[in-house]
Amino acid sequence: MGASGPRGPTGTTGPYLAVVGGGDRLLVAQRRQAEAVGAAVAEAGAVLVCGGLGGVMEAACRGAHAAGGLTVGILPGRDRAEANPHVDIAIPTGLGEARNVLVVRSADAVIALAGEFGTLSEIAFALQAGIPVVGLDTWELGRAGTPVPVDPVARAEDPARAVALALELASKARPPR
Amino acid sequence: MGASGPRGPTGTTGPYLAVVGGGDRLLVAQRRQAEAVGAAVAEAGAVLVCGGLGGVMEAACRGAHAAGGLTVGILPGRDRAEANPHVDIAIPTGLGEARNVLVVRSADAVIALAGEFGTLSEIAFALQAGIPVVGLDTWELGRAGTPVPVDPVARAEDPARAVALALELASKARPPR
Amino acid sequence: MGASGPRGPTGTTGPYLAVVGGGDRLLVAQRRQAEAVGAAVAEAGAVLVCGGLGGVMEAACRGAHAAGGLTVGILPGRDRAEANPHVDIAIPTGLGEARNVLVVRSADAVIALAGEFGTLSEIAFALQAGIPVVGLDTWELGRAGTPVPVDPVARAEDPARAVALALELASKARPPR
Amino acid sequence: MGASGPRGPTGTTGPYLAVVGGGDRLLVAQRRQAEAVGAAVAEAGAVLVCGGLGGVMEAACRGAHAAGGLTVGILPGRDRAEANPHVDIAIPTGLGEARNVLVVRSADAVIALAGEFGTLSEIAFALQAGIPVVGLDTWELGRAGTPVPVDPVARAEDPARAVALALELASKARPPR
Repeated sequence: MGASGPRGPTGTTGPYLAVVGGGDRLLVAQRRQAEAVGAAVAEAGAVLVCGGLGGVMEAACRGAHAAGGLTVGILPGRDRAEANPHVDIAIPTGLGEARNVLVVRSADAVIALAGEFGTLSEIAFALQAGIPVVGLDTWELGRAGTPVPVDPVARAEDPARAVALALELASKARPPR
Repeated sequence: MGASGPRGPTGTTGPYLAVVGGGDRLLVAQRRQAEAVGAAVAEAGAVLVCGGLGGVMEAACRGAHAAGGLTVGILPGRDRAEANPHVDIAIPTGLGEARNVLVVRSADAVIALAGEFGTLSEIAFALQAGIPVVGLDTWELGRAGTPVPVDPVARAEDPARAVALALELASKARPPR
Repeated sequence: MGASGPRGPTGTTGPYLAVVGGGDRLLVAQRRQAEAVGAAVAEAGAVLVCGGLGGVMEAACRGAHAAGGLTVGILPGRDRAEANPHVDIAIPTGLGEARNVLVVRSADAVIALAGEFGTLSEIAFALQAGIPVVGLDTWELGRAGTPVPVDPVARAEDPARAVALALELASKARPPR
Repeated sequence: MGASGPRGPTGTTGPYLAVVGGGDRLLVAQRRQAEAVGAAVAEAGAVLVCGGLGGVMEAACRGAHAAGGLTVGILPGRDRAEANPHVDIAIPTGLGEARNVLVVRSADAVIALAGEFGTLSEIAFALQAGIPVVGLDTWELGRAGTPVPVDPVARAEDPARAVALALELASKARPPR
């Protein structure tokens, strides 16, 4: 990881992007997609935040590491050792799935990949908190039999565009520090 | 509220049903629906758990009270006074929207009415935790452009059937204490 | 439990008093003390809040029940069944010991009996939040080799006086609702 | 911050030490003490975790930064901007003082300096969780009028010894990863 200035690692200055998605074993295409998202986060100088476990989380961290980035894992359990090997900063919370709220609150924008109900909860919490969400092959939201007229999730076509869009939305949502 | 035995109020023995939905002002039909859900929860001898605020939460508590039920409100802020006037037991958490997790974890089943992203987060958390969810005019879930093949939310047609279904699913999900 | 008015159980109107203390097996004198505290809470028309487990928590709930009171247990785990049999309203949080914060935040005043580090954390959190603490044979606080010049814990001599003092401090700390 | 191997920053391999203490303005001697603790944490290759705000937290982070270390701030509010300028990785939680639990759970050992009730809560939570605590001019613990026979806090004489003792206790408490 390249130090980027007098204050130390990337983390000090860049935005924080959460990458959320399923924790189970991935198909090859899903793994490559998550790695590419992680790499794009790192190349943009952003800190990657995630839930710290396997699946999408691990692939995204691996991609970020390969590109020299910094990764933060906010874990459901109490043992730092449950973090995947590509997490730099592991925060064991002991809160169970309530840690999903913290993953989202830590981020300036959320990139949501394919996942299960935990991923859906992270999308919902981000939207509730006014944190932008970019979706890439993830949950669709509808109400009472009809799709939501204006999709609250910004959809992206590929990893590079997902990260670019997340950064753009983050810069609008929060003034730079 | 009828005392049901030597151990005291309804709360001691009945199941707990969470009623989740939007906190904003309701249309008349929505208010009546939420009141009817609350009344059916109380008539079944169950404790009604909710987020303690207005809108669906308040209407459901009002309905439960009118039917002699017991209501619990798990509040986002620190001040018990933010509870609606039909909350019997108010739990101020100071956790903000992270309290949504607690509303769901406190329940044996969740009945989801119309609501915003907070309601969606509660549906997602319940499904993640394996707690049954019954939906009544609430969020639909789909993935990557297609509806979920098997809807994880049990849909009901009206308040009475929603509560009956929630109780049935709760009794299957957890052994009686 | 006696219904106290049109809104239902005691819980709707009375103050909330948390009783905190150790969860391990008690000596006979400790058990009697905790039961007497619980009974006095109930006789004062207050809701008893606690961590819901054994030891001081169970004895206090038993005392409250014997006197017709209402008890709330905020549990560390996810299973309502871990509540002691004298808890009326059980709130499983899944937050582990972080639930100590919620026990305290739910109360208008805290009565602290003998306990271990969890009890100390509850005393500390209450003091940090400005919630009055009454101590009965519990932790003493000192700094850097000297006792704190003005003890932030109000000390009581016996259960009846502890509860009376807690109610008095609660009424000063918060305006009646 | 010196990269220490193929996996990136210090954070990946070193232990995590929490430094807890008051958030108010410090006396000069207190500030120097906290800076020296932070510097010693960094020189030992450990990640410094704290509550991210001012006072002891800021001075410890400043000391760590001056020595090339990595700092993590787990914030009570929702805004990353509330972190002091020497926090590298800021985690806004929105949990209020309940975040004290997370500061402690993130650490392999806790170094407690002078502070108020929040600091006491962190000492108590660490002891409850079995995480070693080293005290430097901080709270003393006693029960029912007598000091605790065996002080559960390891007392240190100066910053260098406090950090050395914390590392030693951390290595005994948890196997290296």
